[in-house]
Amino acid sequence: MAAPSVYTYLLLFCSTTMLLLLCSPFACAAGLSLDSVRDFLTREEDTIVFSLIERAKHPLNTPAYYYDDPAACFGTADRHRNVSFAEIFVRESEAVQAKAGRYESQQEIPFFPSGAPFTLAPPYNFTTDLHPAAASINVNDAIWNIYFNQLLRLLAKEGDDGDYAATAASDLACLQALSRRINYGRYVAEVKFRGEQQTYTALIRSKDKDALTKLLTFEAQEDVVKRRAEKKAKVFGQDVTLDGPTTETSGKNSSQSSFKVAPSVVYKLYGQWVIPLTKQVEIEYLLHRLD
Amino acid sequence: MAAPSVYTYLLLFCSTTMLLLLCSPFACAAGLSLDSVRDFLTREEDTIVFSLIERAKHPLNTPAYYYDDPAACFGTADRHRNVSFAEIFVRESEAVQAKAGRYESQQEIPFFPSGAPFTLAPPYNFTTDLHPAAASINVNDAIWNIYFNQLLRLLAKEGDDGDYAATAASDLACLQALSRRINYGRYVAEVKFRGEQQTYTALIRSKDKDALTKLLTFEAQEDVVKRRAEKKAKVFGQDVTLDGPTTETSGKNSSQSSFKVAPSVVYKLYGQWVIPLTKQVEIEYLLHRLD
Repeated sequence: MAAPSVYTYLLLFCSTTMLLLLCSPFACAAGLSLDSVRDFLTREEDTIVFSLIERAKHPLNTPAYYYDDPAACFGTADRHRNVSFAEIFVRESEAVQAKAGRYESQQEIPFFPSGAPFTLAPPYNFTTDLHPAAASINVNDAIWNIYFNQLLRLLAKEGDDGDYAATAASDLACLQALSRRINYGRYVAEVKFRGEQQTYTALIRSKDKDALTKLLTFEAQEDVVKRRAEKKAKVFGQDVTLDGPTTETSGKNSSQSSFKVAPSVVYKLYGQWVIPLTKQVEIEYLLHRLD
Repeated sequence: MAAPSVYTYLLLFCSTTMLLLLCSPFACAAGLSLDSVRDFLTREEDTIVFSLIERAKHPLNTPAYYYDDPAACFGTADRHRNVSFAEIFVRESEAVQAKAGRYESQQEIPFFPSGAPFTLAPPYNFTTDLHPAAASINVNDAIWNIYFNQLLRLLAKEGDDGDYAATAASDLACLQALSRRINYGRYVAEVKFRGEQQTYTALIRSKDKDALTKLLTFEAQEDVVKRRAEKKAKVFGQDVTLDGPTTETSGKNSSQSSFKVAPSVVYKLYGQWVIPLTKQVEIEYLLHRLD
């Protein structure tokens, strides 16, 4: 009769330990490590490249982006002024997603926070890996401007096929992927802060942005990221045929135009915008890490 | 003075011809050919495989799919009965997209036609390639059931990370890609009908489904499509690293689990569902082609 008793205690001990682990803040943070952060960023590259390739399927479709043009609001019940169709589309789609709880996860930040109540999704207790005072740091405004004013023209060919809704849905997918990746700088900063708490604390207290930037910069690693993103544009953006070799194996002579999105554009996107903006998020997060 | 006059007539003639061409039904159909149809279907494969890979990023997240479970409607103003969170999400997202004019294009068919007015997007005159009486043929109900009851479990790993909105957004992307590809069977049928009008007319009049099926079936071509889709799952679903060879070059020994979606699942999806359902759409379209 002793054996079941031992098992019972063992079971009770295990359950209690599990419960404590699940409830402690340590458990919440347990998932965050340099490795998990790196894995996340690497996987997001695929998402970003897929979304860019999908946007490039549509022509530029400029009427979707007109501001101040009455034609852009044709038939609208209330004539939105100075708001493009794409912006209205993103606002309305984000409102549905807010209601569905997308922004309950700290990994997602809307471009137009509406304060719409989260009423739709099944409940879930999200863990909190970020420091509360710095958790809402984001550069969505910069991402929005770069996407519409610079990147879009490098992705899409001139033309108008009228599929404005499908096009704006592709824009939304690009914006969300870029926002999630770049604003993940908060997690990068958090994990680095935890790793070298003393060093960071001193620099944060002295508000030494330059020293923080230096501490957060690894040029060799940044170069790897840019070249890997460029390679993904080649691998994912090639025309796959059954018998022919994949572009990657057919050598380095393939021109930029044989891919659905020019690999050089993805290289530039990472070098000029994604990496610098991520670093900006990291620094702003750290400057509020002790608030 | 004669020269300008000749030019004027020439200009007038050209303008009139262009105008006639643009207004005639022939002009509308001019973009549709066996080649353009094939190109469309091949490009859609990429979209489908991307969307499956993106869905596989999330765990199964079953609470998003509960029917009849009050927890699934927690906090909802009116407690939706017998409707899963994913279904509500798709309905509400489609309503925004309907308002934005997505379904003004005949290439897109909603899962839940709401009759919501199209009020948001800039105007555009879409061409009509399809026969009006058959244009709304679709198998969205079958796609919906297969996706949620069979495919989803083959894509996503067990688990629950609470990101139900992002997950349902991925579901919507998969559903839309599959729906667009499969219901494109209407265009395939239209172009084939135009190519062999007499043969098809006889079979349609006699409602000879078997003969139609035979006429529409090219097993060698179907095999190419299945194997190409499977290859795309390998190329797009591999972990791309800078120095290592791409999976495609590293040989045939890579296991199914080294890809983000098992290539065999994509092969099965095409063989068991996409190709047969497309053919079903083609046949139903043809049976209404003379109405």
